[in-house]
Amino acid sequence: MRTWSFAKGHGTLNDFVLIQDRSAMLNPSVEDVRFLCDRRAGVGADGLLRAVKAEKMPDWSGPGEWWFMDYRNADGSIAQTCGNGLRVFVRWLLDENLVSGDHIDVATRAGARRATVNKDGTICVTMGVPHESDTLTTVGVGSAEWQGRPVDVGNPHCVIRLGDPTLVAGLDLSFAPSLDPGVFPEGANVEFAADTPDGTVAMRVFERGVGETMSCGTGVVAVALDHLNRTGRTAGTCVVEVPGGTLRVDITSDGEARLTGPAVIVARGEVTLPHG
Amino acid sequence: MRTWSFAKGHGTLNDFVLIQDRSAMLNPSVEDVRFLCDRRAGVGADGLLRAVKAEKMPDWSGPGEWWFMDYRNADGSIAQTCGNGLRVFVRWLLDENLVSGDHIDVATRAGARRATVNKDGTICVTMGVPHESDTLTTVGVGSAEWQGRPVDVGNPHCVIRLGDPTLVAGLDLSFAPSLDPGVFPEGANVEFAADTPDGTVAMRVFERGVGETMSCGTGVVAVALDHLNRTGRTAGTCVVEVPGGTLRVDITSDGEARLTGPAVIVARGEVTLPHG
Repeated sequence: MRTWSFAKGHGTLNDFVLIQDRSAMLNPSVEDVRFLCDRRAGVGADGLLRAVKAEKMPDWSGPGEWWFMDYRNADGSIAQTCGNGLRVFVRWLLDENLVSGDHIDVATRAGARRATVNKDGTICVTMGVPHESDTLTTVGVGSAEWQGRPVDVGNPHCVIRLGDPTLVAGLDLSFAPSLDPGVFPEGANVEFAADTPDGTVAMRVFERGVGETMSCGTGVVAVALDHLNRTGRTAGTCVVEVPGGTLRVDITSDGEARLTGPAVIVARGEVTLPHG
Repeated sequence: MRTWSFAKGHGTLNDFVLIQDRSAMLNPSVEDVRFLCDRRAGVGADGLLRAVKAEKMPDWSGPGEWWFMDYRNADGSIAQTCGNGLRVFVRWLLDENLVSGDHIDVATRAGARRATVNKDGTICVTMGVPHESDTLTTVGVGSAEWQGRPVDVGNPHCVIRLGDPTLVAGLDLSFAPSLDPGVFPEGANVEFAADTPDGTVAMRVFERGVGETMSCGTGVVAVALDHLNRTGRTAGTCVVEVPGGTLRVDITSDGEARLTGPAVIVARGEVTLPHG
């Protein structure tokens, strides 16, 4: 039996187990990740965030003294990065005194990311440069068909814009939307969005391989970019309301997206792993 | 902000947050319970088990030095007791050196319960005397109707016996079965059970107000009593396979049920509560 220190936290209800593995000694197996993320048998989360000194990651060529965010999905698979996870990761690094300062650089599989801690406690993270397609594609949801627009945020998205927030709220997302495999050979996260009277955008998301989730950082960026493009802008600010809370996206004049939102560490402790 | 020590454990995947509150100082509110049991915003569990010295519980008239198991459902409501929870509670009391010995007496809202720790690590708990009705009642599941038998295990159950375990496995329990309100004015947990070729009973359960769960201790007792009665016995042993694992029920010659199964503590730590 192995006992590991862990923390649990969430950003807009996208939740994570966090472990520190400075020298890459723990090396969690797929089974370990599944156990840690199992909501009944283990601790429970959408994914695992493992903090490793970047110099210990063979594929990382940037500064070795940064922390590398090794993100794993709950099923044990490796993921590139995660906007909500990155905020929670930085909040935890700060709480544990593993980093300091107003700007925290983090190494991820998607490259370097920079986090900024705001006075109100929210955290802003860079999300790379998203790209929206000019071409519409058809998406099936139950017996209905919608037109959506592909957006690349490092991972594939399809944004469907509805006329009214009540249409978004009323959707049945129990089943996966059907996508054109010619457009999305590896599937996509599908976002349904509508403008609200407050000037924000209401959004729900169906994540590929997961189902509907309370929040999706890259999905929020995709929706924000689509919103700006649809109103004739390439840069600007968009506030997106997801079921798990509120997120803000800023797209700079050079096309880089920044995602701002809350990040909370809820619990800390030791977990006993059954395998290995 | 308040920070409480907690543990998390499960019995056949029925999972619990545990807190020690020896002198009844913490007094978790309904909101506190909901937060602790929230699987994304909090720690996450089916319920909270709070350990209080029994002398601090005004309604308890038994020995004051026992530990009282204050069981709350995830929605914050108070519950009488829970067979899976009782095993996890006793495992944790032992791990924390709060009790010792082979027989542990526990105070619950349903009265005194006794736990016995077996050499293989499983724990046996007394479950009171269950009663089965002689009268069948009709239960609707989707477009199908079944005949079930009411069983009282302190809480109301309805046991439906199917001809084959594949019928149990194939049921769609996405929606609540419909019960006769004249028979079950407060609703009931509905168990679907079938004999397996191994001599065990396969079971799935729909818990009132919750939905399908991986395990239900009182439901397992109801199914075991029904199994014994149906084979012309009032006492004996029955092994029940639930989605979360295997449980054993012994019904003694005086009608008392004993439930035996695993109990595991997975994690320990501190949790920060947002309210209060």
